[in-house]
Amino acid sequence: MEASTRTHREVVARFWERMSAADWEGVAGLLADDFVAEWPQSAERIRGRAAFVAVNRHYPGSWAIAVRRVVADGDRVATEVGMTDRTGERASVVAVSFFELRDGRIARETDWWPEPYAAPAWRSRWVEPIPGEDARLPAPPAAT
Amino acid sequence: MEASTRTHREVVARFWERMSAADWEGVAGLLADDFVAEWPQSAERIRGRAAFVAVNRHYPGSWAIAVRRVVADGDRVATEVGMTDRTGERASVVAVSFFELRDGRIARETDWWPEPYAAPAWRSRWVEPIPGEDARLPAPPAAT
Repeated sequence: MEASTRTHREVVARFWERMSAADWEGVAGLLADDFVAEWPQSAERIRGRAAFVAVNRHYPGSWAIAVRRVVADGDRVATEVGMTDRTGERASVVAVSFFELRDGRIARETDWWPEPYAAPAWRSRWVEPIPGEDARLPAPPAAT
Repeated sequence: MEASTRTHREVVARFWERMSAADWEGVAGLLADDFVAEWPQSAERIRGRAAFVAVNRHYPGSWAIAVRRVVADGDRVATEVGMTDRTGERASVVAVSFFELRDGRIARETDWWPEPYAAPAWRSRWVEPIPGEDARLPAPPAAT
């Protein structure tokens, strides 16, 4: 692995660590001056470190973040992280992210937020359940 | 970039090309004998080439697939692809995937399917719209 790839992997690991610690100053120090984040599902673009920190500071919940996958390739890094709300009030979520780095800092981030859904019946004959993962599905409405 | 990384990147590019062509024999030839796919959002696991091909053969729609991002790192490859239904009956979707390769074939694939959602109002002061992306959001219900 090239030295830059190794460094970029470490910068992104540090980013998620500082995000999990809600250390916004530490997060901002890892971002390029012209940092841009994009959340394509909601067509939202966050331009600049200050705006990114503001959104995260105001984000409802207190999120413990665990990195589950990292793929690093030159100035590109992809991650899958699990986020658990320390208050217990919100369901856990997964974020899949693509980072672009420049001069050792994160210049661009694109985040995807996949949500649980019910497995459709038409393909059930070719599929088996993943043990434990069904706990991520929202509970069915209580019988009344 | 190491030779194996380059090869793995090409195998995954070829996988999406053959998926887009609905060439199921071509797809199966790129998969390891003990291939496993996982769709964690619905807690579904697809074990084996035959089951994977059957699910894709029966999947509703005819999907043209365009690779938008590739990050390759040794035996790990991450991709973001856009899928458009050639029949025009279904909304375009995005898939984010993590692949693990072994001996030049895909041994494991994890797919995430993020869906559009409305941008929440609380963060609008720090956010700008991404031009064009809002077309992916479902149309609001018609006034009656």
